[in-house]
Amino acid sequence: MGANSFGRFFTVTTFGESRSLGVGAVIDGCPAGVPLKNEDIQSALNRRKPCPLHRGGKEVKTAHIFSTTRAEEDLCEILSGVYLEKTLGSPIAVLVKNKETSFKNYENLKDIYRPGHADYAYEIKYGFRDYRGGGRASGRETVGRVIGGACARAFLNSYFEKTGQKKTEIKIWAEEIAGIKTSPVFENSALPENISEKLLQLSREGDSAGCVLSAEVLNVPKGLGSPVFYKLDAVLSQALMSIGAVKGIEIGGGFASASLPASENNKIGKNYSGGISGGISEDNIFFRLSVKAPPSIRKEQTAFNSEGEKIKLSVTGEHDVCLFPRIVPVVEAMVYLTLADSVLASVNDRV
Amino acid sequence: MGANSFGRFFTVTTFGESRSLGVGAVIDGCPAGVPLKNEDIQSALNRRKPCPLHRGGKEVKTAHIFSTTRAEEDLCEILSGVYLEKTLGSPIAVLVKNKETSFKNYENLKDIYRPGHADYAYEIKYGFRDYRGGGRASGRETVGRVIGGACARAFLNSYFEKTGQKKTEIKIWAEEIAGIKTSPVFENSALPENISEKLLQLSREGDSAGCVLSAEVLNVPKGLGSPVFYKLDAVLSQALMSIGAVKGIEIGGGFASASLPASENNKIGKNYSGGISGGISEDNIFFRLSVKAPPSIRKEQTAFNSEGEKIKLSVTGEHDVCLFPRIVPVVEAMVYLTLADSVLASVNDRV
Amino acid sequence: MGANSFGRFFTVTTFGESRSLGVGAVIDGCPAGVPLKNEDIQSALNRRKPCPLHRGGKEVKTAHIFSTTRAEEDLCEILSGVYLEKTLGSPIAVLVKNKETSFKNYENLKDIYRPGHADYAYEIKYGFRDYRGGGRASGRETVGRVIGGACARAFLNSYFEKTGQKKTEIKIWAEEIAGIKTSPVFENSALPENISEKLLQLSREGDSAGCVLSAEVLNVPKGLGSPVFYKLDAVLSQALMSIGAVKGIEIGGGFASASLPASENNKIGKNYSGGISGGISEDNIFFRLSVKAPPSIRKEQTAFNSEGEKIKLSVTGEHDVCLFPRIVPVVEAMVYLTLADSVLASVNDRV
Amino acid sequence: MGANSFGRFFTVTTFGESRSLGVGAVIDGCPAGVPLKNEDIQSALNRRKPCPLHRGGKEVKTAHIFSTTRAEEDLCEILSGVYLEKTLGSPIAVLVKNKETSFKNYENLKDIYRPGHADYAYEIKYGFRDYRGGGRASGRETVGRVIGGACARAFLNSYFEKTGQKKTEIKIWAEEIAGIKTSPVFENSALPENISEKLLQLSREGDSAGCVLSAEVLNVPKGLGSPVFYKLDAVLSQALMSIGAVKGIEIGGGFASASLPASENNKIGKNYSGGISGGISEDNIFFRLSVKAPPSIRKEQTAFNSEGEKIKLSVTGEHDVCLFPRIVPVVEAMVYLTLADSVLASVNDRV
Repeated sequence: MGANSFGRFFTVTTFGESRSLGVGAVIDGCPAGVPLKNEDIQSALNRRKPCPLHRGGKEVKTAHIFSTTRAEEDLCEILSGVYLEKTLGSPIAVLVKNKETSFKNYENLKDIYRPGHADYAYEIKYGFRDYRGGGRASGRETVGRVIGGACARAFLNSYFEKTGQKKTEIKIWAEEIAGIKTSPVFENSALPENISEKLLQLSREGDSAGCVLSAEVLNVPKGLGSPVFYKLDAVLSQALMSIGAVKGIEIGGGFASASLPASENNKIGKNYSGGISGGISEDNIFFRLSVKAPPSIRKEQTAFNSEGEKIKLSVTGEHDVCLFPRIVPVVEAMVYLTLADSVLASVNDRV
Repeated sequence: MGANSFGRFFTVTTFGESRSLGVGAVIDGCPAGVPLKNEDIQSALNRRKPCPLHRGGKEVKTAHIFSTTRAEEDLCEILSGVYLEKTLGSPIAVLVKNKETSFKNYENLKDIYRPGHADYAYEIKYGFRDYRGGGRASGRETVGRVIGGACARAFLNSYFEKTGQKKTEIKIWAEEIAGIKTSPVFENSALPENISEKLLQLSREGDSAGCVLSAEVLNVPKGLGSPVFYKLDAVLSQALMSIGAVKGIEIGGGFASASLPASENNKIGKNYSGGISGGISEDNIFFRLSVKAPPSIRKEQTAFNSEGEKIKLSVTGEHDVCLFPRIVPVVEAMVYLTLADSVLASVNDRV
Repeated sequence: MGANSFGRFFTVTTFGESRSLGVGAVIDGCPAGVPLKNEDIQSALNRRKPCPLHRGGKEVKTAHIFSTTRAEEDLCEILSGVYLEKTLGSPIAVLVKNKETSFKNYENLKDIYRPGHADYAYEIKYGFRDYRGGGRASGRETVGRVIGGACARAFLNSYFEKTGQKKTEIKIWAEEIAGIKTSPVFENSALPENISEKLLQLSREGDSAGCVLSAEVLNVPKGLGSPVFYKLDAVLSQALMSIGAVKGIEIGGGFASASLPASENNKIGKNYSGGISGGISEDNIFFRLSVKAPPSIRKEQTAFNSEGEKIKLSVTGEHDVCLFPRIVPVVEAMVYLTLADSVLASVNDRV
Repeated sequence: MGANSFGRFFTVTTFGESRSLGVGAVIDGCPAGVPLKNEDIQSALNRRKPCPLHRGGKEVKTAHIFSTTRAEEDLCEILSGVYLEKTLGSPIAVLVKNKETSFKNYENLKDIYRPGHADYAYEIKYGFRDYRGGGRASGRETVGRVIGGACARAFLNSYFEKTGQKKTEIKIWAEEIAGIKTSPVFENSALPENISEKLLQLSREGDSAGCVLSAEVLNVPKGLGSPVFYKLDAVLSQALMSIGAVKGIEIGGGFASASLPASENNKIGKNYSGGISGGISEDNIFFRLSVKAPPSIRKEQTAFNSEGEKIKLSVTGEHDVCLFPRIVPVVEAMVYLTLADSVLASVNDRV
């Protein structure tokens, strides 16, 4: 399987660089007859888009105000696989054209390896890279994931309806932003004032911030996950760690579990396992993610150029000050993709 | 790809239940001409074995003293794929016969779901389970991983020799055991006295302990990892989280990174990225793992039986008090397997 | 791996229905730095296109005159994966928009299963189908294959140049058309008069014809093919039989070999093995294909409708009278894809 | 997926060389709860075994008399994945130990490339080979296929029983042996006298013979096969062509279809499609195979040695004079494996 494909049964393949003609995804393995509208995908993409209000100058209390101002409409087109708003069982190809495909703003970065970015890593790996906006390593790559996640969600909802199960719900919130712990801040929550001020300060300094996300997945069908290498927690970890900025994952008790004796950690009702035992779902799933600060900052940093010389660098352009909340639909998409794949796999467990 | 296979290029498939006739692995995709002796595999397996000294009653200062006393020799046989101590390019099948295949000690657990175990999860998933010692969910399954890891290591060493690179070294140590933080305790280190006492106490109470492991991987070839879903950190996360007791993973700065501004987190020389940028290796790799307490304990717990009734349960037999140090060769094996697969993948990047 | 993906290392995923917004392919696993221009793909697509001369009314002596007149420009756009006319190592997405996406001409076929077509099979499999022009089962699906093949060819040529090998050449010719055996007729050969007359007669009758193709692949690198299930002949067979109209495949001696004693069939120099021994290339490859007559015909046939009733059917529109020569670039594409995948696989054999 | 694995959902991985310690298979993806006894596998293996009667000197009228006399018991052991004669959902590992593992009879072939064999191909591919009896390229490799096929059959029968469908039946017969056409000769049919005499003559001359097999698969579930690259006929072709001696495949009308106009080839009731339309099953399946003469012959041939010199070679030992009927259970196994995989895939088509 190609490295840009995820899922053994419900497979998404994403494509596109930051400034290529387009970004998108092909979903293969989605069962036939699933209701799927353009709007199902577009509404997910809209949540990932840079904040339009910000661009219009209106007051926004949510964290969207701190997002990049790159002007992308992110309008999607379903190229294939759907007819009369139902899936055909054939590959669903979805395209989002990039509006900004110019290389002008990036010409000066051609021979510089931005710190915290994958510029150097891509150069040594491939010997050649698209330096326009990070190329394939750009956050723009996640457009394809969100497309895939929307299709996965549509399939799951159709499946749950057919089988008479409750729909799986995913709740994701920030519990820490810019090093400040907080009561849950959701995607559309107003930011706590201290956090808002901290982000504003970082923004003014040309700096950026990380965050810690928590997630709860409710109404998960029991029995998902395929031991031993495709255990649900293992696949979730691959899915989530493959998001550029994620640097840590905890399932259930996570690192706290390490300090509990079994007599405590085993306790029924505590769900220290995070809803997954032996890699198989049996309860609500809990996980936490560490998300690092977006590395493109205006603040002057030391960087290397391709000659191996240290230089001073200030990355221009307007970048996200914090990946929350734009990362939320991406995390959600990876969970939906993981679940959709696991549901199809589990159907075969007891055929 | 089957759920019991890992690796897209260097593929290990493990098999075996706790009390089936045998456990083992088939390795497919190992290049031809790699020197591989029975001893290369056996020595790795020996590190995973229950401590023989313990059974002989001799004094051991390492954590091995707290391991299970299940009497397994874990002698391996290479069934195929190797001739004259060199790999043939065909599948390498390796078998370890189980000595204990009886079900007698487990008959009483037939209708009980042990807390912290996967008994219930397997039952709802498959509708039928091998209740003898946890079946496929047993730690015994990791024998196949260690076999695979030993083959991966042999390949890597052969590759590094051919290409004139330094051998990759993996250092793994406990930084916390039973909730007690400590300076690095390696596999063969004497245990700090406070930890030793704590484990002894838990052992007497019929309880068990978790630990936090740290790992450093030195001399990693640059350019490993395949964006975007097979990024090196993503695959490592799948590999490591698929080990039964692992509940959390951090790469580089991990959760601490979330509270650093980019101006700090990006800093050259700090390696907060853990040696992986954009999913591609560029430096020494660091990661941390949370390992939960082994759930089989003598101490009385509340459990459910298959009738849905709460019962009191004391799990008899002698089980590991802590998975450290026996988990070390398993973690190591998963790292070797991940690296071997990534090396083969990366060879194709610039063909 | 999804069912619409081919190749374990050099992977093409095709998408698109006969009348969806577009058809195309995503190629994942193509090494970085391979020279690739839009023209490399377009020129392959042009060979597959319905004959433009025919539409212009000019005289054509080749079999192109008997091709469908569906008005498609088949202009391709490289959406991603290529920068400055070199591959990036990331997925290469290529789109061809369909000009004819209307369903009007097909509304009358909504409830009819055209004989020799997959209408009924799709209906029973998916419970829902895109009846416009055969949907995914249309020959239009092969656009994605030709795109993939052009990328595979670009990779192979780059690889052969780097390694100093001769370029692989593929020669494909018809040895029988409409039941008439002939000396080799190549893609751009003038048709023998008796065949031309036969096709004209069938065309007038609203009927169509099959053909037998032979192929010779020269300068194949030795050592391609991965025993035991990805033997080169096995994968070639999957690749070629997956083309809609192909109903038979022979490698080397093929069916004739069955009647030879080993003393004859083994003879050095005869190449009855077709250049593949034990699934591994060692010489020039020979194969033959049986291609059935395109099933859409004006001539009245008996068909079933969705009520299970027999009806009389004449398929309107102008369809190919014979798949030769338009199938030639499709066969070629599948050979290139098979070789590209095998080359990448073989690189790993002796790492 | 490794090259020694077949099937995307119901996956068999085979291992073993002609003279390694053992040969066998691991089956991953078989649903849980399928009744499976050792005897189900052993009875299939027994049909593939060299004829025991022949060794005892008793009179046999079937083609078994012309099989090799290599003394293998081919007793199988189920190492894992089955408990209380039901599958667990975990990998089913099955081992057949080789009795003959000596290299003595083959030492003289170490530097010789036997004509019609893969000796040279393996040498150039891997740079190192197990010259004992053909190593991995030996027909002995098919033991793993037969094991996999027996498990696939057990799954299919369980599935058909659950779903109330008729069991799929596979009929395979020779329609030509040693160049002599015949009315159907089944596995246990007495050989027609002219064929028997021909084989005896070849045997005396130290030569061997090929055959043409026909097969009919009855009661195939409708809707199997996954367009576009995993069409049922495409996967069957891969499966069957991956058997060492197969050099040609026809589905339905095969090469004869090429000479029929669509008006004939489309005809309802004729089943020229061989039961597969658009790659999807819709009727009984028909196919034909060309099987070459086993290349190990006593009759003197010209061969190359590793120095590139031509030498005279007579291959000693007693080898099969014709692969019929021992190849029948192997072909059957590949069909069962293909169907089992397709059934699991198709379950997901309309979830």
